[in-house]
Amino acid sequence: MSLSAFDHPILSGLFGDPELAGLLSAQADVKAMVAFEIALASAQAACDVIPPADAEAIARLETAYIPDWDMLNSGMARDGVVAPELVRQMRRMLGEQAASSLHFGATSQDVIDTSLVLRLKSITAILAARIAGIETTLERLSMRFGDRSLMARTRMQDAIVITTANRLADWAAPFVRHRQRLEEIEKRLLVVQYGGAVGVLDKLGGEGARVAIGLAGRLGLGVTEKSWHNQRDSIVEFAGWLSLVSGSLGKIGQDIALMAQNAMGDIALAGGGGSSAMPHKSNPVAAETLVTLARYVAGNSGTMAQALVHEQERSGAAWPLEWLVMPQMLLATGSSLLLGARLLDSIESVGRD
Amino acid sequence: MSLSAFDHPILSGLFGDPELAGLLSAQADVKAMVAFEIALASAQAACDVIPPADAEAIARLETAYIPDWDMLNSGMARDGVVAPELVRQMRRMLGEQAASSLHFGATSQDVIDTSLVLRLKSITAILAARIAGIETTLERLSMRFGDRSLMARTRMQDAIVITTANRLADWAAPFVRHRQRLEEIEKRLLVVQYGGAVGVLDKLGGEGARVAIGLAGRLGLGVTEKSWHNQRDSIVEFAGWLSLVSGSLGKIGQDIALMAQNAMGDIALAGGGGSSAMPHKSNPVAAETLVTLARYVAGNSGTMAQALVHEQERSGAAWPLEWLVMPQMLLATGSSLLLGARLLDSIESVGRD
Amino acid sequence: MSLSAFDHPILSGLFGDPELAGLLSAQADVKAMVAFEIALASAQAACDVIPPADAEAIARLETAYIPDWDMLNSGMARDGVVAPELVRQMRRMLGEQAASSLHFGATSQDVIDTSLVLRLKSITAILAARIAGIETTLERLSMRFGDRSLMARTRMQDAIVITTANRLADWAAPFVRHRQRLEEIEKRLLVVQYGGAVGVLDKLGGEGARVAIGLAGRLGLGVTEKSWHNQRDSIVEFAGWLSLVSGSLGKIGQDIALMAQNAMGDIALAGGGGSSAMPHKSNPVAAETLVTLARYVAGNSGTMAQALVHEQERSGAAWPLEWLVMPQMLLATGSSLLLGARLLDSIESVGRD
Amino acid sequence: MSLSAFDHPILSGLFGDPELAGLLSAQADVKAMVAFEIALASAQAACDVIPPADAEAIARLETAYIPDWDMLNSGMARDGVVAPELVRQMRRMLGEQAASSLHFGATSQDVIDTSLVLRLKSITAILAARIAGIETTLERLSMRFGDRSLMARTRMQDAIVITTANRLADWAAPFVRHRQRLEEIEKRLLVVQYGGAVGVLDKLGGEGARVAIGLAGRLGLGVTEKSWHNQRDSIVEFAGWLSLVSGSLGKIGQDIALMAQNAMGDIALAGGGGSSAMPHKSNPVAAETLVTLARYVAGNSGTMAQALVHEQERSGAAWPLEWLVMPQMLLATGSSLLLGARLLDSIESVGRD
Repeated sequence: MSLSAFDHPILSGLFGDPELAGLLSAQADVKAMVAFEIALASAQAACDVIPPADAEAIARLETAYIPDWDMLNSGMARDGVVAPELVRQMRRMLGEQAASSLHFGATSQDVIDTSLVLRLKSITAILAARIAGIETTLERLSMRFGDRSLMARTRMQDAIVITTANRLADWAAPFVRHRQRLEEIEKRLLVVQYGGAVGVLDKLGGEGARVAIGLAGRLGLGVTEKSWHNQRDSIVEFAGWLSLVSGSLGKIGQDIALMAQNAMGDIALAGGGGSSAMPHKSNPVAAETLVTLARYVAGNSGTMAQALVHEQERSGAAWPLEWLVMPQMLLATGSSLLLGARLLDSIESVGRD
Repeated sequence: MSLSAFDHPILSGLFGDPELAGLLSAQADVKAMVAFEIALASAQAACDVIPPADAEAIARLETAYIPDWDMLNSGMARDGVVAPELVRQMRRMLGEQAASSLHFGATSQDVIDTSLVLRLKSITAILAARIAGIETTLERLSMRFGDRSLMARTRMQDAIVITTANRLADWAAPFVRHRQRLEEIEKRLLVVQYGGAVGVLDKLGGEGARVAIGLAGRLGLGVTEKSWHNQRDSIVEFAGWLSLVSGSLGKIGQDIALMAQNAMGDIALAGGGGSSAMPHKSNPVAAETLVTLARYVAGNSGTMAQALVHEQERSGAAWPLEWLVMPQMLLATGSSLLLGARLLDSIESVGRD
Repeated sequence: MSLSAFDHPILSGLFGDPELAGLLSAQADVKAMVAFEIALASAQAACDVIPPADAEAIARLETAYIPDWDMLNSGMARDGVVAPELVRQMRRMLGEQAASSLHFGATSQDVIDTSLVLRLKSITAILAARIAGIETTLERLSMRFGDRSLMARTRMQDAIVITTANRLADWAAPFVRHRQRLEEIEKRLLVVQYGGAVGVLDKLGGEGARVAIGLAGRLGLGVTEKSWHNQRDSIVEFAGWLSLVSGSLGKIGQDIALMAQNAMGDIALAGGGGSSAMPHKSNPVAAETLVTLARYVAGNSGTMAQALVHEQERSGAAWPLEWLVMPQMLLATGSSLLLGARLLDSIESVGRD
Repeated sequence: MSLSAFDHPILSGLFGDPELAGLLSAQADVKAMVAFEIALASAQAACDVIPPADAEAIARLETAYIPDWDMLNSGMARDGVVAPELVRQMRRMLGEQAASSLHFGATSQDVIDTSLVLRLKSITAILAARIAGIETTLERLSMRFGDRSLMARTRMQDAIVITTANRLADWAAPFVRHRQRLEEIEKRLLVVQYGGAVGVLDKLGGEGARVAIGLAGRLGLGVTEKSWHNQRDSIVEFAGWLSLVSGSLGKIGQDIALMAQNAMGDIALAGGGGSSAMPHKSNPVAAETLVTLARYVAGNSGTMAQALVHEQERSGAAWPLEWLVMPQMLLATGSSLLLGARLLDSIESVGRD
């Protein structure tokens, strides 16, 4: 029992996903926020909104800026968002002129949301690759064991004999759709956030749209007609997708835990966890953990959807709810894909000759 | 406080959606199940799986079959699914030969899931039309009041003045995406279920795929490579979409409830609910109810995602969880769209000259 | 798939709980609301707040008042609560003088919440009795089969042999605590709601407390220092209790579904559901349904807890959320206890000689 | 956006609860697990189950045992629980004889669950003290501002004027009940876990009950008739209590956020968060965060309740779900009480003269 199982000194052994944890770390967040400010200045210089020299000075912050973490922490406590203190620290490293060009026309949510989206772009690529890996492993298992026979079971009762390939097909089919869904979702999700104080780029005059397009292009993101400060549907949609992925893995885990029951002998797994009281046992730890993670992500998807009721131009209640829920959902889904791959790789045989 | 607010003698006045309730009624369910059996027989006759005369006899059940509701109810209690008793009743109205052709190669889940999907096809069309209606109303409001000024508020504090059009744009944008999402989802959702006892159409010999295609075509549905008895991702995905729609309406409702505060005067609504204790009050009932429904559907989406852990070839635990959750989600979302339309239509003015 | 499984023409065969459904019907609700108004008038007459003759006239409404359901329904649509129209209908059956004494100093929430509590008093008694029945059946099973041996399983793997009594003890122990909890909760839950428009009995002068005590006494309920219009903790606490009860039954159901697997033979059940495709099967329908209901009530308990954020003196958003969730939780828990009893009674043998 | 907001370099500035985080750290967990093993050995020595010298050697591990964190992490990955590797490490520091007495008759879950309960004992004391602090502050506010007038609002509309004391009473009343509830829950929650491999203390002969009582006494915990490995009702009940506490604080937060609206002027708060785009604003950050935390804990309570379906003698799927959910719920509730105290202390005036 510990703070977060996903980055816990002990529990992360089972639940950890170092790759995603890196992308969700405070360091990565700050780095992406700095990248936002630099890209914004660059885009604004290109549109003659700020002097090019300012953009160049700001660009040097990529390496020059060293966060004062304690002050970021106390800024967070005071402001409820990290951006004001971050911008303050960054400005302190600039001359007065360039400082006035930094974060120009932007609001906290622009930098924080875009930082998230930038890292989601990396994360979705990782998750998609892992899903493809799961599919490949399932195909390989089907080639190797697909012709074997397996007792199909409905309502946990023996039904009639099928082939192992039949069951593997049920495991694999959803992942094809998950990748298809992700492609559809990415168009809506991987978009820059840039709206200024109340979402209308009030300080940009007529240049708002051009700057937004330039900013998005520099960051490799798409752009929406208007900022989406209080339109959280694409974030919640993506959270739902995470529940689909971890849920499909939970189904596999539940099936394998049932197949691995001693009286069944439907599957042979390499490894298996030990017991402090019963050394003879070999526990299907990864299989069970997939069920755990599926139920966890499922429940969290319902909590995440509460964030859709995002009042007025920006909600200080609904938005931070995403901060509490989304990283745990990402880490749990990432962990689920890692464990799923490990579990499927550990299958020594499945079905009967 | 009552059984279900959505079809309650009193509460349905506020929460009811007669159109969707009709499609989710037991009558509509039975009708769609009968349609499945008739289409199946027709497709099987076309593939020479059953004699054409049997299919003709079965087709006559569309009008000839009168459900014995009490027996369906007790069959449900006994079998945990309605299909065995339904098929028994239908067979009793056929000669021995045709009876043996009815429901051939099918399982309970084929008929029950397909009945759901058939009605979801009607329901998604209704929901899409209502969403389009919301968009049209928002456009109309923007034309009429868009130039007015409105105090933007972030973290519930006055920020800077925007136009009413700005806020209306935030309300409208998600619905464009919701329709886009629905189109993407429908390809996966509106597919026939036909797999037989354990999902492999074991009784169909080599004719399974052809019959499935014929069946799907007759019902106006798509077809998957394999039945999706235990692959519930598209159902859960659709449930997530419902939470997005009702959530976007909840955001509008929350905004309007805040705008309608006496001290704000940002909006004037026709109508408004009365109080048994304070006759002077005019309550923004529809606005608040949108928040209620958004939170309800959000929470249910998390419960629905638990159904993804669907063990083996068919789960008697996970599948019925959908029956408890999905209809309430549909009715709540339908109700939300009706109330949203009513609320937006009741706007007499918004913003300030 | 249908409106609500708990009162559906077909699905209620499995999920129905006629006893609780009766108490949660609109009829029972109206009856309890009328009882509130009569008890209130009686208590007010005893405190010289209204003339005794008015209380007598109001008392006659117990039999004289016939609801106009259509008008209650449209009143609900208009006001967002049923009470204003209900009071209007009741007043129409009284002379002008008595009409002015009806519902005196009360608000909609007083009558609606108290109606709920009155029926919860009956419901908790029913649930407690059913729990006691479950405990008795488990004791009986332990007497009969307790000495038999059973393979204990941890992480779904064979561990070491225990007695059937050991497992039955794990099933039974939570129910003892559930009854203890219910007693503790009832002190907080079964209290009258009476606060008037904004919770301070503003029209009662100094008589508020005395009237509240008299009202509570007449209804067999407790009283709180102040009305609890916007304090929903005891309602949500009770909802949590429902999740504990159905969860403990879900654990039994899951265990029995596992024990009933063909390869296990740990248990023999009478009955069992049939399949439309595999007549040889005997499905542990009740066991699985207990799992379904546990997951359903669990998820709903999280949605219910969202209702705690009940703004100001009365929330038109948070309060109705309870109306959507609580009845389903009650019916699911009631159904769970009925099915649990039926399932345990169907055990023909458990464990091995 | 980061791993866990509760122990994040930046976000913990707002969401952190250092006191609870300390008790939920891996270090505190290991320390409590070691305490369990020492108390167990001491109790077993007193019952002549192991030699007194072994217990003495084991007692020295309190200071002598230094965890090898890397190996604990990889043991967790392998076994799905930390205990086997922890016991292995501890045994390595003992002679062969004492090593054989360590963890005698115990299972992983005994040590892990008891470690949790030991720390929950400290945590509940902290939470109870914080709740009492909230109550005191509310009383003080009522003394100072109670006589002022405040517009009561129902359904977000002006109703009639009440006193500030009236509203403060609604804020305070639930906390009295929360402390009462906690006392009731502690009897069930703060109990030792000790059951051995499958919950029946199979290696203890007739000494099981005596050892359990001695163990519990040494740890300051209660004892149950049988171990509660698969009876998770008291854990879930406590999680529900957390949702009640944070929910009551969420209600206060929502009210204050509404009172602090510029057009209302019902409350004056010291401090207030800044904006990166609008320096003139003073945001009610703590108030809004209480709403965030309430919704978060509410949603998690529903996920937690899924852990009640804990199959057989120990579930490797349901039990770890608690590890993912419970710490976040504890930290969120702890944070909520800290922020609630800070917010109430920041009230400079409330209501109108």
